[in-house]
Formats: sequence, structure tokens, C-alpha cells
Amino acid sequence: MSDEAGSLILSEPDLHFMLYDWLDVEKLTEHERFAEHSREVFDAVLDLAADLATLNFAPHNRLSDLNEPTFDGAHVAVIPEVAQALQAYGRSGLLGSAMDEAVGGGQLPQVVGRACFTWLQAANSATAAYPLLTMGNANLLATFGTPQQIEQFVRPMVEGRFFGTMCLSESQAGSSLGDVTTRAVPQPDGTFRLFGDKMWISGGDHEMSENILHLVLARVEGAPAGVRGLSLFLVPRILLGEDGSPGQRNDVIATGLNHKMGYRGTVNAVLAFGSGSHLPDGEPGAIGQLVGELGHGLDHMFHMMNEARVAVGASAVGLGYTSYLHALAYARARSQGRLPGHKDPRTPQVALIVHPDVRRMLLASKSYVEGGLALVLYAAKLLDLKAIADDEEEAARLDLLLGVLTPIVKAWPSQWCRKANDLSIQIHGGAGYTRDFPVEQFYRDARLNPIHEGTDGIQALDLLVRKLATPTLTELEVLRASCQATIDKTPEELSAFAGQLGGAVDLLVGVTQRLRDAGDPLLLAAQATAFADAAGHIVVAWMWLEQMIAAQRGANRIHEGKRLAGRYFFAYELPMAVRTLDLVDDHDRIVVDLDDNFL
Amino acid sequence: MSDEAGSLILSEPDLHFMLYDWLDVEKLTEHERFAEHSREVFDAVLDLAADLATLNFAPHNRLSDLNEPTFDGAHVAVIPEVAQALQAYGRSGLLGSAMDEAVGGGQLPQVVGRACFTWLQAANSATAAYPLLTMGNANLLATFGTPQQIEQFVRPMVEGRFFGTMCLSESQAGSSLGDVTTRAVPQPDGTFRLFGDKMWISGGDHEMSENILHLVLARVEGAPAGVRGLSLFLVPRILLGEDGSPGQRNDVIATGLNHKMGYRGTVNAVLAFGSGSHLPDGEPGAIGQLVGELGHGLDHMFHMMNEARVAVGASAVGLGYTSYLHALAYARARSQGRLPGHKDPRTPQVALIVHPDVRRMLLASKSYVEGGLALVLYAAKLLDLKAIADDEEEAARLDLLLGVLTPIVKAWPSQWCRKANDLSIQIHGGAGYTRDFPVEQFYRDARLNPIHEGTDGIQALDLLVRKLATPTLTELEVLRASCQATIDKTPEELSAFAGQLGGAVDLLVGVTQRLRDAGDPLLLAAQATAFADAAGHIVVAWMWLEQMIAAQRGANRIHEGKRLAGRYFFAYELPMAVRTLDLVDDHDRIVVDLDDNFL
Repeated sequence: MSDEAGSLILSEPDLHFMLYDWLDVEKLTEHERFAEHSREVFDAVLDLAADLATLNFAPHNRLSDLNEPTFDGAHVAVIPEVAQALQAYGRSGLLGSAMDEAVGGGQLPQVVGRACFTWLQAANSATAAYPLLTMGNANLLATFGTPQQIEQFVRPMVEGRFFGTMCLSESQAGSSLGDVTTRAVPQPDGTFRLFGDKMWISGGDHEMSENILHLVLARVEGAPAGVRGLSLFLVPRILLGEDGSPGQRNDVIATGLNHKMGYRGTVNAVLAFGSGSHLPDGEPGAIGQLVGELGHGLDHMFHMMNEARVAVGASAVGLGYTSYLHALAYARARSQGRLPGHKDPRTPQVALIVHPDVRRMLLASKSYVEGGLALVLYAAKLLDLKAIADDEEEAARLDLLLGVLTPIVKAWPSQWCRKANDLSIQIHGGAGYTRDFPVEQFYRDARLNPIHEGTDGIQALDLLVRKLATPTLTELEVLRASCQATIDKTPEELSAFAGQLGGAVDLLVGVTQRLRDAGDPLLLAAQATAFADAAGHIVVAWMWLEQMIAAQRGANRIHEGKRLAGRYFFAYELPMAVRTLDLVDDHDRIVVDLDDNFL
Repeated sequence: MSDEAGSLILSEPDLHFMLYDWLDVEKLTEHERFAEHSREVFDAVLDLAADLATLNFAPHNRLSDLNEPTFDGAHVAVIPEVAQALQAYGRSGLLGSAMDEAVGGGQLPQVVGRACFTWLQAANSATAAYPLLTMGNANLLATFGTPQQIEQFVRPMVEGRFFGTMCLSESQAGSSLGDVTTRAVPQPDGTFRLFGDKMWISGGDHEMSENILHLVLARVEGAPAGVRGLSLFLVPRILLGEDGSPGQRNDVIATGLNHKMGYRGTVNAVLAFGSGSHLPDGEPGAIGQLVGELGHGLDHMFHMMNEARVAVGASAVGLGYTSYLHALAYARARSQGRLPGHKDPRTPQVALIVHPDVRRMLLASKSYVEGGLALVLYAAKLLDLKAIADDEEEAARLDLLLGVLTPIVKAWPSQWCRKANDLSIQIHGGAGYTRDFPVEQFYRDARLNPIHEGTDGIQALDLLVRKLATPTLTELEVLRASCQATIDKTPEELSAFAGQLGGAVDLLVGVTQRLRDAGDPLLLAAQATAFADAAGHIVVAWMWLEQMIAAQRGANRIHEGKRLAGRYFFAYELPMAVRTLDLVDDHDRIVVDLDDNFL
């Protein structure tokens, strides 16, 4: 990889520490599924990702921010650098690197694929959004699609020729997907005709790929109201012939673009299905095929949604990480002022990094972005462990843990790696507020992450209500036991941290039980965000203890850095989360009971 | 005022509550200095400010964001709406409303002037920056200027014909002003010639006013290094004849503009003094006059700087407040989803404001923006009390309290009203991330506030090191006694809050003493930001107790709202600040001792 520039995108030594020293990814190759791979292969694809990030994705990050997609009423135009980068990525074979060989993928461990993709997200989150959605789309189809759908659609996506989208929201149905009104009318030939408008469709229209495959939530006429009436349809922008050759335009068009604060390189479109703009066979309606089972649209969509949530968390990590690295480089290079007690104006000024307040901001940022990256990679490895699990019980346990972690992986970096974005500007001072330095764009880009693919408020409800405070508390016990396993293996030198984590986990368990026992859904809804934020901090403290344990094996720069940031997280961050949980435990009802006329 | 639009800028009923029910501003008219005024006068100027905000400032807020100032190498162009709004403001007489009658002002209480100006800042923070600097400049000159300087320069500023700037930073001297290198060469006629470049000059060049008066920190040749060698000079863009008539261009020019993330309507220039671009009398150098005493430049400049810091805090409040009002209106108008336990998809969706998580975000925002506004107005009233203080001891006490509050007034809203900006986007969901809604601009604009006029890190050092943890702890005692006075007057019904505040203040006092006793400047520097953030929360809790006490007198919407947001602040916010102080009290040295190679 290109060392100099790459080092401002992500840290290769840190990734190597996490993958090899901590997560022991090499061991996965002992299993049949990954037996063809080796550390050399992993290193090679990581290098390839770093090169793509450095040479193809990062260079147009500012350019596509300054030149967002345009729409002339018929065509969506995107600056050519985006398509060039995506073509290079497609050619690299990395797109489907973690997918099964059976569908044309490279069958690498998910954790390696996740690390590779984080390189691209950190380099250019907006351009990375296209393959993010394409991979999620392909994985969904690979899971629920028919063999023919897989053959016709998954392979071209893996090859980077077709792009994918997810079409859920409508103007009246954003967080509330049960209110989707897009209609699907069954046709005698087994296809469906779709009619309706979809909002917020990332990658919704453009001419950068041979085709765009829309996965669309819609309601077959006569289906019940609410989410149970929703089915999932595949609607290609370009209809394919029997032999897969491109045919006519389908009746799906962009009717407008959203203009965003950041993430500007990603097309975000309003799409009209069945508006009559194109009549592929003389009849109105966008032609779609059912994916999976009727009435299971939302379940199926959540296969992609959960993957997208993890990817959003990874994007937040990438944006925070690169921002931190830029701030770190700036703090080393820029001199300003002198230390207290050494104020003689005739002496040279000192580097920013010498000032305690700057060091505090850097160390806090490091603890967030490396904690976030650890969380993302840990969750990705759970997918690999699940894929090779020997027994169903273990697979089920991994699935439950992944279910608990998914909303945390999405929401925690969206908040806390974004804090690193904020601190990075602050470290730059006035310079950071100008468009001459990239940290201001990272800050704007990062503001999307708590919103898309389910707001952080939705993630919090998912974590507290659906996952943890359940009648059986099954997932809570899985989470507790997972933390306990780390605590149990903690060496003596780190026992104080293990003890602190154990106390926090016990509190989390108690608070969750008491919330469940309170049996008041409005109280849970009112406390969910604070609860989830604190739970996220506890989980990241667990990730830090894991990393500190792994770092015990050495004393190089990375190992010392892990000890340092881990100590910081336990000293300053975890205690605040514990205090937040104490407040949640009060079961205070101000928010529930208030009269909103007084707001 | 224009009710409908005005209600999304600031809340007139809240301002009336704060000024009349709480701060009892009418009582100031009993004093000779304000005897010519009355509540009717206050109401009239507040209405005038609200009208200017609504009709002249708010309408071009987005326009000037989309069309930032341009520079063609010679002229700085600003869209005409900015000058039109500023002319309307100049004509209104509000610019110098709180200045002494002796210099052409209206001699209104500062607290009323601050409330008026907050209307303009909330409506358009970037356009308001020009008069912000002009007023600070005029107040400095009115304090330290010669009678002739006052006559020639202050009056035209009060009339809105001349604008003012503050020129401190240079590329190597931002936070470290002792490193300023701009030279001032004494001339036989008593004037000076200035040579040097200044950075980050808001309002630094444009053609919207008859003149621009630069207040410039520079070093007379032979003066000592560091801040003690700095003097303050007045450098007009256009030289004036003896009779005040405009003469030639002075040798000060813009050499470039900064392009910012937000606050785009405010010109931010690099200025070159004495570059030889203009030779007003055939000689090089920008012609300046000394202001105040040689070698006291930084002291004098801090007269303006402290005022600017309060004004930055007020800007942060204004941006947070208007953002909150927009989010509140959106949450009432927009329906989405249903409450837990009422999920029947055939029932209508409910307004966002019904959802507990949205109510939480709104209530938290309300507690920040109303707490911030209370803080800003309380500090402004201290200036009035000082101006009419009967004895020197009381004036000195007020001055000390103002000194403690200034960094808090600047930094606390910069962080916490900005949190309201963040939550406002979240309440809007995806819509809030688009440029179709104003909250995204407020968020970008607000990011400047923790940076300019001294970063929040600088404010924290000022608060902890210069103001509170001093050998005598004098200011700490003044702050403690001020809080105690409120606690002592708290009625029985609110005694729990008074007790909670008392405990927090005791902790603040103890933590400060122990930090002082530790006698370790690096430790103080490392803990200053956390300390200042917590101290700010405690001060704002004090402001909330003050408001809750005042609200005991009634039960209208405003009074109920005060009780609600005050309870929220004591239940959720103050406890976190107390925990932060506990951590500060650990005197942890991770940040001080770390080896920055490990970052």
C-alpha cells in the first residue's frame, strides 16, 4: 500500500493487531470453509483494499462533495471519478470477497471482508455506499432468492456490473414501515406490477452500472395492513431477457434528488414505480419479481437491513478513524503556544500534541475509533464463527449475540466515533472549520450515520425492547456470559479492569431486569436511548479489555497504545456509562408524563 | 412582531418571563442611569429587534449560506441582502442601544440590549457577526479611546456607518497571542506604521460600510517579546481627514478569504497591513493610531474579547434556540408511527411529539437552550448592576462574578446548545440532513462557536487556572456565595433542588481547592475541559433553580415549561456533571504522563 497517504485513512498496524493478535483470524483457516486461505491471502487482500482506498477512493472524496449528483429531470449525473473507483473495485474481485464461492464470491472470512471494506469507507464513505448496498442486496438474494434469481442477479452484482438498492421508506413511512403503501399487483405470468413512490433511496438512480436492482417493500392488493402485509420484490432498472441480456427500461424513474449536508457523493433519490414513464410491454407498472415468501417482506429485508446497520457502524468508525489520524498528524506538525510553567516567549512554541488538552482529545478519540473498530470486527467474526459452528446450539448462541450487538454496532460508533470527528475539528482550531482541511467534510458526512438504516432511537428500542428486556432475558444472559468469559480469562495484571467491567455488566443486567419487571412500554421507550448508549459503552469497554489482554503479549507501539487507550476508556468513559445506567434505573417518568403543550 | 415566523426564531414569552418575571429588569429603571426608560420602552425595542430578526435577518440566512462572500483579488463581494439588513439595523438605532448616551447610545440596560441582539443572532448568526464586532470595537474605544477617537470613530459605529473588527491572530499566533509579530513603527507625528499579516478576521474586508475600523495587536519595535510587548492600534480601512471626511485607502488589504463549513455569510479574511498595496502619503505601512497605553494592548483587547466571548455564547444560544423551535414545530406537525401497545396499523399515525424518545430530545434541548439563554441574560444583567452599584466593593464582587461566568457563558452554550442543534436534526430524521430544512445549516453554523474568540480549551484554562484555582480562591468564593444566595431564598416546594445544587457547589469548591493544592499546572491543564464542562452544568443548574423559583409565581404555559425543563435538568444533567467532577477529583495523570508516540 501507499504508506504515506494510507496512514491517514486507517492504521494498518492496528488492523493487523486486531485481526491477528487479538481475533486470531488465521485460526479460521483451520476450518474447511476457509481452508484455501492463509495469512498471506488475508494480507494480500488487505493490501489491495488499502491500495484501492488510497489510490481510487480517497482522491475524489472532496471532489464528489463539491460536485454532488445532479438531475436534469431525466438523468442523474455523477462525477466520473466515482464510477472509475467503483470499476476498479469491481475489477479487484473484492466486492464479493466474503461471499460464498457458490455464488461467485471469494469465501474469505467476513471479518477480513469487513476490514477491507472499512478501508474504502474511511477513504470515501459516499462512494463506498454503492457497493455497501450492492453487497447487502446480493447477500439477501443469495439467501432468499431462487436459483435463477441468484444466477441472473447475484453474480453480476458480485462482479460489480449491477448495483443494488434497498427501497423501504415512503413519505409517510420512514421509521414506521408498517405504513408502506406501494402496491404490487400480481400478473398471470407470476410477476408483479408495482405502483408507488419510495424516498431516501441511496444509489437510487444513475448510469454508473449496467443495471440497478431495487429491492422494494410493497403490499400485494388485499394483504393485511401493517408489516405482515408486506412482501419483497426485485425490480431491475433494466429488464433482462430470458438469457440475461439487457432489455427495456423498467417503469421506475427518479423524480428528484435529496441534497444533503454531507455524504454528497451518494445519489439519494425519490423513485417513482409505475408512474407510466416507461411501458416496457405497453402496460403500466414497474415489473417486479417476488423475493422469498409473500408476507415475509420485512423479515427478508432485515437480512439486508442488519448487514447495512453493521456497515453504517463501520462507516462511522471509518470516518472517525480517518479524522483522528488527520488530527493526530496535524497535532504533531503544528506548533502553538507553550506549556504552563514554560511561558518564556523567546523559546520556541511547542507542537500541539504536547498540550494536555490536545492529548486528552486525541486519547479520547483513539479510545472511540479503535473501540469502534474492535466492535465492528468482533461482530463480523461472529458471522464467521456461526458459519463454521459445530453444533446448532453454538450457532444459535452466536446468532443471539449478533442480534444484541447489531444495534450497538450501528448506534455506538454513530455517536462516539462522531465525537472523534468533532474533536478532530477542535484540534485543528480555526483551520478545521475551513474547507481547506478534510475534517470538516468528515464531520458533515458523519452526521448521517445516526439517521439512516434506522435512527439511533430505533436502534435503542431494538436493543432494549426487542433484544434485552424480554420475558426470558435470553439474549441478556448470552451477552453477560460473553463478557464473563473475557473477565474469566483476564490475567492478574489487568484484574482491576476486569473487576470494573464485571460490576458494570452486573449493573446492566440488574437495570434490564428491573425495566422488564416494570412492565411499562412507555417507560422503556423513554429510557431506551440512555440505556443503549450506556450499554454500548459497556460493550466497548469489554472490547477494550479484550484488546488489552491481547496486547499483554507485546510491547511495541501498538501494544502500548492499546494499554493507554484502554486505561483511558476505563478511567473516564465507563464510569459515565455506569452513572447513566443509575439514572435509567430511577425509572423516572418526566418524559412520559409531560404535557407537550409545555415544551 | 410577525408572530408566525418570529416564533421559530426565539420565544417572546420566554424572553418576557426571563426579563420581567425572573430578572426584574423593570426595577433597573428606578436607578438614575435607566430612569428615562420603562417597561414600555423595553417592550418596544424588543419588538423592534424581533421585527428586524424576522423581516430583515432571517429571510437571507440560507441565501448567504449558499452564496458566500467572494474575492476577486481586489474586492470582497457580499450578497446585497446582508448590507440591506445591516442598514435597516443601523437605522433602527438598536446598534448602540445599550451604550452610553454620551457616545450616542440609547443607554438601555445591557440585559435588554443582549436580549435584542440575541433575536438577530438567532435569525442569522452570520449577518449578526458584523454588528457584534462593531459594538465590541465601539465599546473598547469608548473605554480606552481619546475624546477625539470617540468622536471620530465611536459615533459612526453607533450609527451603523462604520464597521469594526478585531485583528489578533497571525498564522503562527492563534491561541498563543504572545507570538504576534506584526510591527508598529512610531512616526514623528505620533501615528504608527503597521506591517504584518492577520488571520481569521471576521468582517475583515467588504464594501458594505463607509469604513472598517481594525483594532490591531502589534509590537512596537524594541518592545519585549510576549504579550507584554503588545500594543493596540486603530487602523481604519479609509483614512479620515481632520474633519472626519473620508480620505485615501489605507495600506491594509484582504489577500484571501477563508471558506468555512458554516457561518458563511460572515466574511473571514486574511489581511495584509503595510504590504505596499496603497501608499496613502507615498510611504509604506498601514497608518494606525495607538489606543490606550503602550504595552497594554492585550489588556485593552480583552475588553472587546470578553464582550465577544459573551456574544459568541449568545450566538450559540440563538442557534440552539431557533433549532429547537424548528424541531418542536416539526415534531408537532409530522406524524410517524404509533406508541408501544397501540400498534394497530389501521389506526392513524401519531405526531412525532407523542413518542417518548422525541419528547426526551425536545425536553433536553429545551433545558439546554433556555438554560443557556438564562445564563447569557444573567451575565448581561451583571454589567447593569455593576454600572449602578452603590459601592466599590459590590462593583468588585460583580466584576469577579462576571469574570468567572464569562468563559462559561462562552463555552457552555457552544457545547450544549450545539447539542440541541444536533438533536434537532435527529428529530427531523432524514429530512433534517437535507438542505431543505434549516436545521442542517444551524448545525454547521454552530460548529464555529467552540473555536472562535478563544477555543473552549482556552476558556477552560481561563476558568480553572486564572479564575477559580487561584491562591486566594476569591472568585470561587464569590461564585459559591452567589449560588448560596439562591439556595437560601428557595421556597420549601423546591428545596430538594436547592439541596442538590448545594451539594454540587460544595463538590465544585472542594474539587477546585484540591486541584489548587496539587500545585501541578499540567494536571490542571489536563483536567480543565472536564472541570469547566461540569462547572458550566452546575452554573446552569443554578440558573434553572433561579428560573424555577421565579416560575412559582404562576401556572401559565411558560411557568409550567420552566418547572418541567428545570426538573429534567436536575434529574438527568446535573448528576452527570457531578460524576464528571468526581473523576476530575481523581487527579488522574494518564493524559499528562502518556508517551505521545503511542497515540
